[in-house]
Amino acid sequence: MEKTDIRINESDLRQFTEQVFLAIGCSVAHAKLAADVLVAADLRGIDSHGTARLSGYVRLWQKGRLNPSPQIRIVHETPTTATVDGDRGLGLVVAPYAMEIAISKAKTYGSGWVAVRNSNHFGIAGYHALLAVEKDMIGYAMTNASPLVTPTFSKERMLGTNPMCYAFPAGDYPPVIVDMATSAAANGKLEIAQRSGSPIPEGWVQTKDGIPSVNSHELKSGGSLLPLGGDRTHGSHKGFGLSATVDILSAVLSGANYGPWAPPFVAYLDPHPQPVGEGLGHFLGALRADGFRPIADFKAHMDNWIRRFKQAEPIDQQQPVIIPGEPELAASIERKMKGIPVVKSVLDDLSKLADDLGLSPLSTD
Amino acid sequence: MEKTDIRINESDLRQFTEQVFLAIGCSVAHAKLAADVLVAADLRGIDSHGTARLSGYVRLWQKGRLNPSPQIRIVHETPTTATVDGDRGLGLVVAPYAMEIAISKAKTYGSGWVAVRNSNHFGIAGYHALLAVEKDMIGYAMTNASPLVTPTFSKERMLGTNPMCYAFPAGDYPPVIVDMATSAAANGKLEIAQRSGSPIPEGWVQTKDGIPSVNSHELKSGGSLLPLGGDRTHGSHKGFGLSATVDILSAVLSGANYGPWAPPFVAYLDPHPQPVGEGLGHFLGALRADGFRPIADFKAHMDNWIRRFKQAEPIDQQQPVIIPGEPELAASIERKMKGIPVVKSVLDDLSKLADDLGLSPLSTD
Repeated sequence: MEKTDIRINESDLRQFTEQVFLAIGCSVAHAKLAADVLVAADLRGIDSHGTARLSGYVRLWQKGRLNPSPQIRIVHETPTTATVDGDRGLGLVVAPYAMEIAISKAKTYGSGWVAVRNSNHFGIAGYHALLAVEKDMIGYAMTNASPLVTPTFSKERMLGTNPMCYAFPAGDYPPVIVDMATSAAANGKLEIAQRSGSPIPEGWVQTKDGIPSVNSHELKSGGSLLPLGGDRTHGSHKGFGLSATVDILSAVLSGANYGPWAPPFVAYLDPHPQPVGEGLGHFLGALRADGFRPIADFKAHMDNWIRRFKQAEPIDQQQPVIIPGEPELAASIERKMKGIPVVKSVLDDLSKLADDLGLSPLSTD
Repeated sequence: MEKTDIRINESDLRQFTEQVFLAIGCSVAHAKLAADVLVAADLRGIDSHGTARLSGYVRLWQKGRLNPSPQIRIVHETPTTATVDGDRGLGLVVAPYAMEIAISKAKTYGSGWVAVRNSNHFGIAGYHALLAVEKDMIGYAMTNASPLVTPTFSKERMLGTNPMCYAFPAGDYPPVIVDMATSAAANGKLEIAQRSGSPIPEGWVQTKDGIPSVNSHELKSGGSLLPLGGDRTHGSHKGFGLSATVDILSAVLSGANYGPWAPPFVAYLDPHPQPVGEGLGHFLGALRADGFRPIADFKAHMDNWIRRFKQAEPIDQQQPVIIPGEPELAASIERKMKGIPVVKSVLDDLSKLADDLGLSPLSTD
């Protein structure tokens, strides 16, 4: 979280976001759902994936690349698998729809797996995975994304930051949520460094010629993000392998565009002229915990797992081990009380958006 | 692969390994299967997981920690999920049994997911995942392991190198196999550095006090392996999250021991006196590719994915992008022809094993 003077009330931000989605032609239900996904990102402290992206979705709609009233449908299925066509809809709406199918299949058969094609950016993976957790299921969510990441040994942008999320219900403790970009650093971290003017650590990006760089603006000169691991010695082939896994499950399996064909999120870049599939792809899954052992046993052992890991001996007594999902939950509690900090550039962007669409401006009282 | 003077014929190594498993009381079928898993590791160049570990399994048996004639059985299931109790058997045998259940469920319902408890080290994850690929399914295989890895911010060994494997069938190309430890470096890499006497890169290990180290012997002084990413700045919380995912799916879900309770592979260390589950855990999955789109389409696009990634512009023209699984396949082809290189210390170990068990020595002609 960055320093900012302005905090916006959650409900004001939600209402404004809903109005924007309504203005581009979404149904009330879709506008509410899409706003919920974006505001969840803001609440959870994943600022790069919240309302900071709202104008990006609108610009995709302006370019005719986003269908505000999609006919989302199943195009292929077995008892526990399905492929969903998102009809160029908002990923924010298509992904929860797909997850509900996965959950419904899991209720009957123990598990459900849905690949999605012809979609757009789906926001934070964690939102979708948590839909399964609410039903005492293990949730999986992943998506491919605009190509910005190079495979190990390459200087060509071939993959997105391709996040993978695994979410596990617990008992007394909150769920464990592993939600991570498979690149060494997410794009949002570069943006933070850009605003503060500081160099970035080695191992995050390389130049267009494949030389390691600490310039936070490197991507604007044709540079690229590096896979988790950074270089071959530190396991970048593993980050590449994980990113490839996300790309194949999300797009090769569903019939979406994969690798360098994945359509860019930014509207000023055109999609590939010869696509290999339709839109962007996601992969959602739900696995019933009680398909393996009684749910009370599972939750008791999840609690024991969390308790024990929280007690793992720290290097520095002031910095205990962080359970995946804890920082996002803490941010959420704080921001529900104190409001969501929004940086000036995003406020200006939202203001302009209100003007363009003829909406009342965001309340900043 | 290290320099060595001695190469052993695949069939000689296989026959010797089978004899060892027969000598400790395995059935013919189990001995053949266990040998196949170990020799597959040697063929694929994953030397740390092949017959180099054979004496380790025998020592577990000598300690009474390994049941050579297990009654492997399903203890809980739904149409697409199951928990298998390995009855303290060889993971080399229990994991393929569990994968066959996953495959059988996937044939009927589209997917199958099996958590395993009360097992032991299962060799290379890739072997088990490939059983699904042979049936045109996507294979998943993971396992927890002896605690050697610290979570981010901790100096306590809490996790194993916890590998995860995803394997995808292709058409004209060989399968894509992502098979990786979730630590920055696998233990085998430290062993190579130990033999050559060279320091290891920063970001692989830390001292018992949590200080970064380049000493390949650090683990013997209470040090630990680091999660993929190495440190927080380079994403070690992601490596920790992946390792946690493997631990939870393999052990919390199945009723095996998790985290610091996972039983050590080395027989000279005793298992935890107050276990939280039974033995080690695995998690296997099979997902029918034709559960999402016609298999011919999937394979054609997998081939296109592989072809395009192989063509990704390299930084150095001499070093093209490596598709996950390619180096292991190349090693396998070479070693089937020229024999499997075995280092002297392993040969000595196998020789001693033959003596102990009253077997004919390994043929090294």
